Amino acid sequence: MSLFGFSLKPRKKQTANAAKERLQILLAHERGSNSSGGDYLPQLQRDIIAVIRKYVEVADEEVDIRMERGDDIESLEINIEMPSKPAKAAKA
Amino acid sequence: MSLFGFSLKPRKKQTANAAKERLQILLAHERGSNSSGGDYLPQLQRDIIAVIRKYVEVADEEVDIRMERGDDIESLEINIEMPSKPAKAAKA
Repeated sequence: MSLFGFSLKPRKKQTANAAKERLQILLAHERGSNSSGGDYLPQLQRDIIAVIRKYVEVADEEVDIRMERGDDIESLEINIEMPSKPAKAAKA
Repeated sequence: MSLFGFSLKPRKKQTANAAKERLQILLAHERGSNSSGGDYLPQLQRDIIAVIRKYVEVADEEVDIRMERGDDIESLEINIEMPSKPAKAAKA
C-alpha cells in the first residue's frame, strides 16, 4: 500500500559526499472521499521537525521542505542534511 | 536529493476504497561516513506516530510499520489507514 508507488528499499548508492548525514521524510496524505478533515499537514510538518530536533542538531538552513497538493493526495518532503556528528541523547 | 530515488509527485490514482483516509510516512536516514550517531530511528518512529495522533485518531491496528536497514541507509515506512472522519483540532 504505497502512496508513492515505489519500494521501501532505497535504491540510492551512498552519495559521493558521504561525510554528510541525511534524513529524508516523505509524507503523503490521501483524503477519503467523504473526509472533511482539516488541513493539518503544515502543522504536522512543523511538529515532525521539532521531534527530529530531539535527536539531531539541525540548523534551519539544513532543512529543505517541499509540499505538493493534488485533488485527493497531498504530499510533503522534508530533506535534512547534517554534517555528521554524534546524535544527541534524546531529551525526555 | 532523494534517498528514495523517486519523484515527490505521487503517481498513485485514488484507490478503489476511497472512503478511507491514508497517511504514509517514509523516513530514510543515510549515515555519514564518520557519523557515530546512535540508532534513533525506532524512538523517532514512536514520536512521529505520537505527533500524528494529535491530528487524527489512529487505532494501533490501523498503523503498519516497516523498517529496512542497509549498510549506510536505514529506512522506515509508516502506513496509517483511517476510516475518514473529520480531523481532530490539534491539542496544544
